[in-house]
Amino acid sequence: MNATPRTAGPNLKGKLLYAQSGGVTAVINASAATVIETCRKHKVTAYAARNGILGALREDLIDTTKESPAAIRALKHTPGGAFGSCRVKLKSLEEDRARYERLIEVFRAHGIRWFLYNGGNDSADTALKLSQLGKTMGYDIRCIGVPKTVDNDLAVTDCCPGFGSVAKYTAVSLRECALDVVSMMDTSTRVFVMEVMGRHAGWIAASAGLAGEHANDAPHIILFPERVFDADAFLQRVHETVDRVGCCVVAASEGIRYADGGFVADAHAGTDAFGHTQLGGVAPALAGLVRGKLNLKTHWAMPDYLQRSARHVASKTDLEHALAVGKAAVELALSGENAVMPVIKRISDSPYRWKIETARLDRIANREKKLPSAFIAKDGFRITAAARQYLAPLIRGEAPPPYGKNGLPQYVVLKNAAVKKKLPPFDV
Amino acid sequence: MNATPRTAGPNLKGKLLYAQSGGVTAVINASAATVIETCRKHKVTAYAARNGILGALREDLIDTTKESPAAIRALKHTPGGAFGSCRVKLKSLEEDRARYERLIEVFRAHGIRWFLYNGGNDSADTALKLSQLGKTMGYDIRCIGVPKTVDNDLAVTDCCPGFGSVAKYTAVSLRECALDVVSMMDTSTRVFVMEVMGRHAGWIAASAGLAGEHANDAPHIILFPERVFDADAFLQRVHETVDRVGCCVVAASEGIRYADGGFVADAHAGTDAFGHTQLGGVAPALAGLVRGKLNLKTHWAMPDYLQRSARHVASKTDLEHALAVGKAAVELALSGENAVMPVIKRISDSPYRWKIETARLDRIANREKKLPSAFIAKDGFRITAAARQYLAPLIRGEAPPPYGKNGLPQYVVLKNAAVKKKLPPFDV
Repeated sequence: MNATPRTAGPNLKGKLLYAQSGGVTAVINASAATVIETCRKHKVTAYAARNGILGALREDLIDTTKESPAAIRALKHTPGGAFGSCRVKLKSLEEDRARYERLIEVFRAHGIRWFLYNGGNDSADTALKLSQLGKTMGYDIRCIGVPKTVDNDLAVTDCCPGFGSVAKYTAVSLRECALDVVSMMDTSTRVFVMEVMGRHAGWIAASAGLAGEHANDAPHIILFPERVFDADAFLQRVHETVDRVGCCVVAASEGIRYADGGFVADAHAGTDAFGHTQLGGVAPALAGLVRGKLNLKTHWAMPDYLQRSARHVASKTDLEHALAVGKAAVELALSGENAVMPVIKRISDSPYRWKIETARLDRIANREKKLPSAFIAKDGFRITAAARQYLAPLIRGEAPPPYGKNGLPQYVVLKNAAVKKKLPPFDV
Repeated sequence: MNATPRTAGPNLKGKLLYAQSGGVTAVINASAATVIETCRKHKVTAYAARNGILGALREDLIDTTKESPAAIRALKHTPGGAFGSCRVKLKSLEEDRARYERLIEVFRAHGIRWFLYNGGNDSADTALKLSQLGKTMGYDIRCIGVPKTVDNDLAVTDCCPGFGSVAKYTAVSLRECALDVVSMMDTSTRVFVMEVMGRHAGWIAASAGLAGEHANDAPHIILFPERVFDADAFLQRVHETVDRVGCCVVAASEGIRYADGGFVADAHAGTDAFGHTQLGGVAPALAGLVRGKLNLKTHWAMPDYLQRSARHVASKTDLEHALAVGKAAVELALSGENAVMPVIKRISDSPYRWKIETARLDRIANREKKLPSAFIAKDGFRITAAARQYLAPLIRGEAPPPYGKNGLPQYVVLKNAAVKKKLPPFDV
């Protein structure tokens, strides 16, 4: 940890407000747990905003001191966002002044001196803007980002908590369904397409590649959003693979596009007999293409939210990252830092070693880290050895939730007791 | 076990042929493992047919004695069908005489005296027909069914190996993604639809109901193939649920139909801009309907093969059933039985107790056990207490596969050494 304590910070008295932002993950609550536990250790009251920044705007705050230590511990194995999340992006200080003023008003009313925002690059931007309010609005508020996104597209950090678990889910699921496809290919499905998240960056698609270890192992084709989708080349490769292996298993990013920039999912969207727009999806589009052009039996899967909430098959490495950034964020806050985020720094691949470092939010906000070219094979359909070297440690280790006698994971639902409001309502 | 040994059986000398049939499951290989282990214990050579009955017709046999005990043990935690499966149904003895004669020829050439067919009701029918060949074709062959199907639609048996694991996958996944949806509903998805297998019987759809325990828990709506799909009633219920709970999570069987008998998936299939048929799916159809009529943000998931191959989250109860029927099938065979199947008999719900009984194949072949009316709530959208009582024990217990240092389940791929052919090729 290379956070430099500032003199003003440690003497600041007040409460800490934690909020979750953007798409939730299997381990975002693990970060929440260590945020709260670390606050408790330092005798700082932690509030949480209900539904992300919206809760702060609405003065809809949750008093986490009402939760038992056991409930907070249980967050470490509970997916989703325990306090609610949101997709809201604040504009510039000039454009969104009323909302920024409201936030300061809420912070002031409740003595909130630290704001921890757990999210991706949009959230880092919001945290960055809020971190600057202290100077312009005369109220000392420190903002720390806590990294989270299944997309792994956050700048600076080696990887992002949330990604390792979706990567593990993807690799495990693909390995399993490939065994199914191989079993049946003689008389049933020849081509199977699994769609994965990652609209702009192919990290999750790449992680599917970990399912196979040998040349003929599934996935036989990976479609990355970083590469233009060429239907002819794709169909040619499917054909060759079915000829050689007997079947073809495809992992496709939701974000692949044709050369004209149009999403494959949108290009193949249509209208049903009732006049309703068909909700696209890359997997059905590709399956339709293969069936139409190659006349092969196809099946497809679209795990959607299942992939990012699959805490039951979370990566232990990912969980450890999520726990570490939550703790580090509070320590950074209490040590007087502002406008920073604890990030994962990889020390070595094998053995995998890592540590937490501190990065400035202005190096993270609004940036997007795509899959490097060196991670995509020349043919555009496979991952390279370099990609494996990077990805492999991130899915290592198992950290299953406790199961009840009913055979289901024992996920916690918090009380989420509201803090009494002190201000008039605000139209967010 | 109430198998009555027959005098002819125990003295029969020969080999046992095991084959996998129909859609594979997370635990069909567990049955294969105990079939082979029990044969080894009794010093009977076990062959396996490659790709189900097709392997028997093609004389494409696998010598399981070439596999190590460790490899056979590893089958107990490996999904898919290790010897290959197929979707082929033999017709009547009159219509398919050449194929039946070929089977007898293959059995005779390799000294196969017992045939174990691991499948659903179609496979029970094939096994039943084969069991009668001894009399009509002058070659003593005993056929035993081994129950397997994720659909749980097999008659006589209380439940079917394969179902408990897909039920557990469905309940766990639904519980997880519901936490995700609830986290985000304020500014994102309001209605989430998860499609599940079970074209004719709603057992898997019903198992989704185990994910929720209280009135407002997800799934808020279950759509069963045993009930006519009424779009207006469905939309009304979605609307009410979103009003009351803030979101609506739907579990829908792939097989739901409109009053005119047409599948919802087909009714909403369309054509894309390229002229390709859109591959339907109930989940996108329902999501499109909700978005079109209620203007609510929707997401949907279609796990497809992921659900039936998810050995990583298999039910221990299901695994124990699968192991037990494999062992019992060999014991039935060696004790001289013919045209029977070991089935699961439930002794009590709580504590859950069960035993293996023997059922005649003619009571199982070609029958289909649908979800009883008593398991579906009057409104048609929920499961009853009786359904919970039946389903609950089947998802109990965890039996995770061993994971490697690479973070992936250590699934085995067998050598599947071919038995030398003795006959001329046959055009199947």
